[in-house]
Amino acid sequence: MNNVVSLEIPHRRTGDKAFDVLTALTAEDMAAVNQLIIQRMESNVPLIPQLAGHIIAAGGKRLRPVLTLAASRLCGYEGQRHRKLAACVEFIHTATLLHDDVVDASDLRRGGPSANVLFGNEASVLVGDFLFSRAFQLMVEDGSIDVLRILSNASAVIAEGEVLQLTTTNDSTTSEQAYLEVVRAKTAELFAAACRIGAVVAGRPASEEEALRTFGLNLGIAFQIVDDVLDYSAEQKRLGKTVGDDFREGKVTLPVILAIHRGSEGERAFWHRTLDESVQRDGDFDHAQDILHRHNTLRDAIDRARHYGAIARDALGLFPASPVRQALLDIIDFTVDREF
Amino acid sequence: MNNVVSLEIPHRRTGDKAFDVLTALTAEDMAAVNQLIIQRMESNVPLIPQLAGHIIAAGGKRLRPVLTLAASRLCGYEGQRHRKLAACVEFIHTATLLHDDVVDASDLRRGGPSANVLFGNEASVLVGDFLFSRAFQLMVEDGSIDVLRILSNASAVIAEGEVLQLTTTNDSTTSEQAYLEVVRAKTAELFAAACRIGAVVAGRPASEEEALRTFGLNLGIAFQIVDDVLDYSAEQKRLGKTVGDDFREGKVTLPVILAIHRGSEGERAFWHRTLDESVQRDGDFDHAQDILHRHNTLRDAIDRARHYGAIARDALGLFPASPVRQALLDIIDFTVDREF
Repeated sequence: MNNVVSLEIPHRRTGDKAFDVLTALTAEDMAAVNQLIIQRMESNVPLIPQLAGHIIAAGGKRLRPVLTLAASRLCGYEGQRHRKLAACVEFIHTATLLHDDVVDASDLRRGGPSANVLFGNEASVLVGDFLFSRAFQLMVEDGSIDVLRILSNASAVIAEGEVLQLTTTNDSTTSEQAYLEVVRAKTAELFAAACRIGAVVAGRPASEEEALRTFGLNLGIAFQIVDDVLDYSAEQKRLGKTVGDDFREGKVTLPVILAIHRGSEGERAFWHRTLDESVQRDGDFDHAQDILHRHNTLRDAIDRARHYGAIARDALGLFPASPVRQALLDIIDFTVDREF
Repeated sequence: MNNVVSLEIPHRRTGDKAFDVLTALTAEDMAAVNQLIIQRMESNVPLIPQLAGHIIAAGGKRLRPVLTLAASRLCGYEGQRHRKLAACVEFIHTATLLHDDVVDASDLRRGGPSANVLFGNEASVLVGDFLFSRAFQLMVEDGSIDVLRILSNASAVIAEGEVLQLTTTNDSTTSEQAYLEVVRAKTAELFAAACRIGAVVAGRPASEEEALRTFGLNLGIAFQIVDDVLDYSAEQKRLGKTVGDDFREGKVTLPVILAIHRGSEGERAFWHRTLDESVQRDGDFDHAQDILHRHNTLRDAIDRARHYGAIARDALGLFPASPVRQALLDIIDFTVDREF
């Protein structure tokens, strides 16, 4: 069986363009953010920019810092503070990626060998710590205690989410609710913080801060659900990470949770063996994909993601129509419908 | 050969009492700090307080938070903010311990099995991240951007020091200067920050902040040098961690650097084999101790530590005589002469 599973959902391609539009709208700011990132990962210890440069240069979508930039503009902000804060958000994200790869013992990240493979787990842990500290230094330079509060809270929640995820790994009795709590903590809180900061730098009222938090949080949940679907359905080349990682690591994600609830005793025994007991044989991943297909759980997980996307959409209703708002709305579709 | 090496230095026992005196002087504050630590490592994710509690309850000397408390009192501070900041300092220290144990693959910490052995490397990395984030949350609650600056800078330097240490490990050509740079970054900067914060909460002039920074930095360097000596000379039971860890991990510390510079070609070949190539046989650690003894490098490393202690001592000359100042002066002797 081919590893590419068709999701059988209508592919509205507006989403694909949306990310380009958002990138174009924030291009000048983002160029400055990239400069800042390169400048501020500098250190007298050469291994630090080498390793940090490896993961940051590998790119990724830079979705989180773009959200900070766009949210700031949405709030009418015309200064430059949001650039430094967008770099903070990316540093925090990169630090968690480095630590995640150590925790997951991943071999691939963003289409290339992951930092822990090239530089060792030790360096990945420590450079993660460095980037995390550097993020706080940048926030201190900015001087807003509100931003510091938002991002230190988000960081603590992310760490809690990662630990919580450890306790749900290899546990096929994980509920959809427990899964959602992990997703919210480990992924969505940083999206929420990244967006919320836009209202803070712009000095906007609490209602707009809350609207942007709601937008980011729900966009982040949708993003992670789709990420988890892609781990069973994407083309490896486009995804830029190993398809089937979650399965091999015994992670219990939404498509699997739905399949377990809808499946036969025999199927549950299969999930129990492969995920809880980590006993996996050739063909097991293909079989897992077949089961998910049979119960339509990839499609239904995407539908769940669409629900959170709808909440994110309504949250932006508070803001007047503008090209940035439209791009943020379109990014919801991009997030739900993306194939990578 | 017995693993306990006599240092052949006069044991002035004033130091031993000094820590008790300092602890007694800050007892009420420290009880509050311990309460805060227990409260603030709480989380809805039970593994977090379990793991954090394991390492924090194991104790250690709580030297760093005690320094924050004592430095604050030395500066005439009479409020309670220093308690929360002392807890921050201990959280940051604990986070680095957790990550260190993962990086070093240590089995023992503070006399018991280390957290990574009991809970796994994954959880140790993530709970370290949590404690680190929690420290920043506490600083944000306190609200001083100066404290945030001092501790975010210290955290970045610590991470740099740890990465730098990776690059000196298994390199027997490491110079004393490179060693000192690692020690300063990975250990002394947090001592400096812990002390300096005392002047900041008390609103004292820059000169006192600088004096306390100088005291802490040099005390920290002395502390780490002695720590590295003890790894070759201490009784395992008193040290509370595995004697010989540094040797087995190929860490190139001051006693070894001095021995390499003073030794024969044959000895250098021994260090090269055991440290650079990590080829170690039964009896090698005993032989290493013999060589260090032959060249008096444990004693001379302690003398080097005493030099930094002297700088720390002079730094306190700025402050009027008081029981707290005396206890801080005595703590220098404790640091240099301790056997654990």
